[in-house]
Amino acid sequence: MAMVCLSDFEAYAKKYLPKIAWDYFAAGADDCTTRDENILAYKRIRFRPRMLRDVSVMDIRTKILGSEISFPVGIAPTGFHQLAWPDGEKSTARAARAMNTCYIASTYSTCTLEEISAAAPGGLRWFQLYIHRNRAASQQLVQRAEALGFQGLVLTADLPYTGKRRDDVRNGFRLPPHMKVKNLERAFEVCKMSLLDPSVTWNDIYWLRSLTRLPIIIKGILTREDAELAVRHGVQGIIVSNHGGRQLDEGPATIDALVEVVEAVRGRVEVYVDGGIRKGSDVLKALALGAKCVFIGRPALWGLAYKGEEGLQDVLRILQDEFRLSMALAGCASVSEIGQHLVQFSKL
Amino acid sequence: MAMVCLSDFEAYAKKYLPKIAWDYFAAGADDCTTRDENILAYKRIRFRPRMLRDVSVMDIRTKILGSEISFPVGIAPTGFHQLAWPDGEKSTARAARAMNTCYIASTYSTCTLEEISAAAPGGLRWFQLYIHRNRAASQQLVQRAEALGFQGLVLTADLPYTGKRRDDVRNGFRLPPHMKVKNLERAFEVCKMSLLDPSVTWNDIYWLRSLTRLPIIIKGILTREDAELAVRHGVQGIIVSNHGGRQLDEGPATIDALVEVVEAVRGRVEVYVDGGIRKGSDVLKALALGAKCVFIGRPALWGLAYKGEEGLQDVLRILQDEFRLSMALAGCASVSEIGQHLVQFSKL
Amino acid sequence: MAMVCLSDFEAYAKKYLPKIAWDYFAAGADDCTTRDENILAYKRIRFRPRMLRDVSVMDIRTKILGSEISFPVGIAPTGFHQLAWPDGEKSTARAARAMNTCYIASTYSTCTLEEISAAAPGGLRWFQLYIHRNRAASQQLVQRAEALGFQGLVLTADLPYTGKRRDDVRNGFRLPPHMKVKNLERAFEVCKMSLLDPSVTWNDIYWLRSLTRLPIIIKGILTREDAELAVRHGVQGIIVSNHGGRQLDEGPATIDALVEVVEAVRGRVEVYVDGGIRKGSDVLKALALGAKCVFIGRPALWGLAYKGEEGLQDVLRILQDEFRLSMALAGCASVSEIGQHLVQFSKL
Amino acid sequence: MAMVCLSDFEAYAKKYLPKIAWDYFAAGADDCTTRDENILAYKRIRFRPRMLRDVSVMDIRTKILGSEISFPVGIAPTGFHQLAWPDGEKSTARAARAMNTCYIASTYSTCTLEEISAAAPGGLRWFQLYIHRNRAASQQLVQRAEALGFQGLVLTADLPYTGKRRDDVRNGFRLPPHMKVKNLERAFEVCKMSLLDPSVTWNDIYWLRSLTRLPIIIKGILTREDAELAVRHGVQGIIVSNHGGRQLDEGPATIDALVEVVEAVRGRVEVYVDGGIRKGSDVLKALALGAKCVFIGRPALWGLAYKGEEGLQDVLRILQDEFRLSMALAGCASVSEIGQHLVQFSKL
Repeated sequence: MAMVCLSDFEAYAKKYLPKIAWDYFAAGADDCTTRDENILAYKRIRFRPRMLRDVSVMDIRTKILGSEISFPVGIAPTGFHQLAWPDGEKSTARAARAMNTCYIASTYSTCTLEEISAAAPGGLRWFQLYIHRNRAASQQLVQRAEALGFQGLVLTADLPYTGKRRDDVRNGFRLPPHMKVKNLERAFEVCKMSLLDPSVTWNDIYWLRSLTRLPIIIKGILTREDAELAVRHGVQGIIVSNHGGRQLDEGPATIDALVEVVEAVRGRVEVYVDGGIRKGSDVLKALALGAKCVFIGRPALWGLAYKGEEGLQDVLRILQDEFRLSMALAGCASVSEIGQHLVQFSKL
Repeated sequence: MAMVCLSDFEAYAKKYLPKIAWDYFAAGADDCTTRDENILAYKRIRFRPRMLRDVSVMDIRTKILGSEISFPVGIAPTGFHQLAWPDGEKSTARAARAMNTCYIASTYSTCTLEEISAAAPGGLRWFQLYIHRNRAASQQLVQRAEALGFQGLVLTADLPYTGKRRDDVRNGFRLPPHMKVKNLERAFEVCKMSLLDPSVTWNDIYWLRSLTRLPIIIKGILTREDAELAVRHGVQGIIVSNHGGRQLDEGPATIDALVEVVEAVRGRVEVYVDGGIRKGSDVLKALALGAKCVFIGRPALWGLAYKGEEGLQDVLRILQDEFRLSMALAGCASVSEIGQHLVQFSKL
Repeated sequence: MAMVCLSDFEAYAKKYLPKIAWDYFAAGADDCTTRDENILAYKRIRFRPRMLRDVSVMDIRTKILGSEISFPVGIAPTGFHQLAWPDGEKSTARAARAMNTCYIASTYSTCTLEEISAAAPGGLRWFQLYIHRNRAASQQLVQRAEALGFQGLVLTADLPYTGKRRDDVRNGFRLPPHMKVKNLERAFEVCKMSLLDPSVTWNDIYWLRSLTRLPIIIKGILTREDAELAVRHGVQGIIVSNHGGRQLDEGPATIDALVEVVEAVRGRVEVYVDGGIRKGSDVLKALALGAKCVFIGRPALWGLAYKGEEGLQDVLRILQDEFRLSMALAGCASVSEIGQHLVQFSKL
Repeated sequence: MAMVCLSDFEAYAKKYLPKIAWDYFAAGADDCTTRDENILAYKRIRFRPRMLRDVSVMDIRTKILGSEISFPVGIAPTGFHQLAWPDGEKSTARAARAMNTCYIASTYSTCTLEEISAAAPGGLRWFQLYIHRNRAASQQLVQRAEALGFQGLVLTADLPYTGKRRDDVRNGFRLPPHMKVKNLERAFEVCKMSLLDPSVTWNDIYWLRSLTRLPIIIKGILTREDAELAVRHGVQGIIVSNHGGRQLDEGPATIDALVEVVEAVRGRVEVYVDGGIRKGSDVLKALALGAKCVFIGRPALWGLAYKGEEGLQDVLRILQDEFRLSMALAGCASVSEIGQHLVQFSKL
């Protein structure tokens, strides 16, 4: 079976992963409307490609918070990578480093931050944080991450409680006994999300700020109002995200929300987006609408499920090739030439 | 089979109810366009969820006409509950009381008002009225309801004649011989809707007013013009409804009509809505658009069909949990924080 | 099998008619887009029903060009009724008279005008005319019709050449040898449409005017420009029609074109519409948008195919009952109360 | 099997061509969205047909760059015609001449320009050019074409790199060993598109201009900006094209882009369009929106696959008949009467 595009990896993962793991990764909240809208919304955006521009030398590199990456696609934080591949997040870290891009490691990793760091020394990594009721535990995580050389702190804002994912309820999803949420091993029971603190507010950004010198990126913003609040509270970056459609169903597709957030932010901080990226041209659309970089969630897991580190590299390489090609076909030789003039919203 | 969401109950009811009963409950008028639009219209509304608001303490209670209910979902008036469960409306009354919400008992109940009252003393109940050609019969019903402690009188305005429900015609629908429309037992033949009075006009509100001190809620309003007339004729509440799509096909979805009615009413009376509620987030959308409370029809019958009183409680509990969760994920800790800023209409 | 709605008759006809006859009646031009749009366009119109209006006494009669009909639905001109039922147009004429409505007999009838007249003396009938290259033949037809008591002359304007109906080409459609286009028996060969005159222009209305005192109704108008020309050339009525989607594919649905035509005509002549009427509520929509009456084509043929005269009466009676009911449920007790306020175009 | 419309030829070709050839011709880039949109976009355009205009004498001829063709449909440049029919482009040339229309021969023909010329002397032909890294090779091709009597030079602007056509990747598409890209036989290896020069810019138009006196037509323009640049750089014609959806997926449908390009060009040069033409009425729509002529790609290949020269003539004749009929039914007797008033964009 030739692996030609990301949906080939999806089909593979669906076929070979245990159902309970596939369902967990695939799950969206409620009717999965937002999960699916994330993808459909890209299809409503049309390119306005320009011709006869010299695209013989292509430069697809970009920088996020000052660090250069080989192309504007990073790995979004997702949990439980051992469900996809035995080496779990260690493989993810290695693939990201090999492809010279950024990996956001999740609090809910099945490897420790230390294991992740050791697996791929020198790789560009950010750490994703949930704030727990036990603030000391969260503080300890932040400081471990900083000490290990993680270069950004990503605060997830859209999970005061876990969304209702019907298949997980039906399956009675829980980690197999031999896997553990290792970063939290002593502090919490595995998978008890109720230890997350639903009382977190914008003021907690100041508390985080006091714990670390790392740049703070807030993940889960979908409105101009919250984008403005994020900027005012001093974050360095915003990831427009709806948690892959796993939290509040029937919120906006992320690519639609991106437009609103970028407009509100007016360049004061970097804006990224995740959700629904399935082709290199989706990346081009996101950048045209103002994203500095995109992050992929499920496609990275499909890559892991296919062949671990190597499979994830395959996924990234396909996206990279497709992104480069779509840039060239749209008439852009470097990322700096990408702009809103390249796209229009279909009226359909 | 895990009962995770309302469509699980629907599937159960479809599988286990006699076809003639399922068809009767499921029926919409003509092509069933409006019945289905009631649901689809919710899907065209998108949330604008807000993040990092303290949602650690959730308060989902509300009041309707001064009575507190545990959450803004009541039981809409539907007929013939014994078709779904042997105890019929007695089970419905018990479940509503157990969940501390409001039950609107139908004229076309298969239990008497007295049986309903005795089944769940102290429960919050309204009585739904059709005005019959025999006005004395209607007067007697109103006065029985008031004497039994019903706290509201719901006048159905959209049934001068019964809509054309093709499956009922094909099935030759009629109540099985052992069931009776007990409230009307002496006054009418069962199921002969032609005894309803198609000459009813707005002036009959004044006649109703003269019969009872109960608040009058008018059900079946879909336009701003009729909303204005309702307010002027002194009703206390309006239920935006298209009778579950069972009367005039191809009228508006109720959630769309709600917007128009709320705007016309300008807060002078309470506005409710029924039709198409299938998830807790639908309730949130209705409240964001100005409803004080929603009422569920078919889902309540599916709950009864599943396990009677217990099954209906399951349905209500699921809606309650989903409503609370969607509120929290949208950034609202109490019903009073819900507002129009939470939603936008999709352009699709 | 209960015949509950018009699609029951459609299913019957599809099942029992010879394929070549079914295909001929069902045919649309090219991709059949307009044929299907005629129906879909009705579904995009939403009612704004009004409540609590006295609808105890319903009056659904109307007048067309001064003649009263029992409800605003007539029989559109379609050819070859013997393909549907042995007695052909004689049955059609009888059913129309029995239901007290208007029947537009086609030039391409399989019975003569004389047979049609004799079958149902006193019925309200109009005669539909194509202008042939042999003008004398057309003149003779017009004068025969007038002498036989037909009360209107319907000039079809949209068939300078026959549309491309793929199934008819594939089937090699032609009338069975025992059927004849009797009105033209001597003048033409059967089914050779090429005898129609494609040089007809608006000036030919004056020629028709000179032949007869009958009111002239022009059929096939779809634009405001042509509606204005029709009024200026002195017609008494306009039938907005796209020939059931059998001529130019991908023109407008007739109900959409009706709006434009009614606006242009400004009440100077009566406007009717055909195409896509499948329910009584479609009739109500057409009247709300300004039609004085609608005409049904294929549904009449389905009725004939079911049981001849009796089957067509069944079809008309169902439409009549549905129309009366939808009027009542929308709050109108008589045709004069129907107006544009009753409808709105869905944005979907 | 009767060949009644173009999709009959499509079905034939799909059934009888080797899969690898069918896939190659059918391929679109990535998700094939644009390939399919080219067709769907035509369906969103509605005619506004006019009645009672004398259409007894139809004139469907037009001129492109001064040369008369029998109707406004030419053959777009597509590669590898021997994959469809043994005689390849020689058959294409003969069919085009027989139908008195224009054939744009592709650089990637499987016959030489000389063979094509010899097969149909005197036919109207343009030559399609890719600019290769080896400019001398391109220059030689241009000059051979001019010497052979080709009357136009079509520069393809949308292929700095080849689009990603998944099926071709999966199939490992390459020409069978007995076929050759004969025009390039010495200069290049077959199918190595990477010899195309991705550094081509607008200035290369001046270089082409210096090589030949042929009119230059630029193919692949989709925006008003590029249309303006094309005019300013002195081209004689523009073909609005997205390469049949084979290059950048999710660009605009060509019929939509045509509107924008025609508006920008303001009559200074001729504008043509390809992509998605499947019926004669599509041609009418394109002309109504300002195209001087359309070109067909895949349908020509289906015709070849059916019966070579004869099959392609069948395809052209069907389009011609359909175009003439749709013109007549829309009320136009000659191409000069076609205008924007004939169409409107559906809101759906």
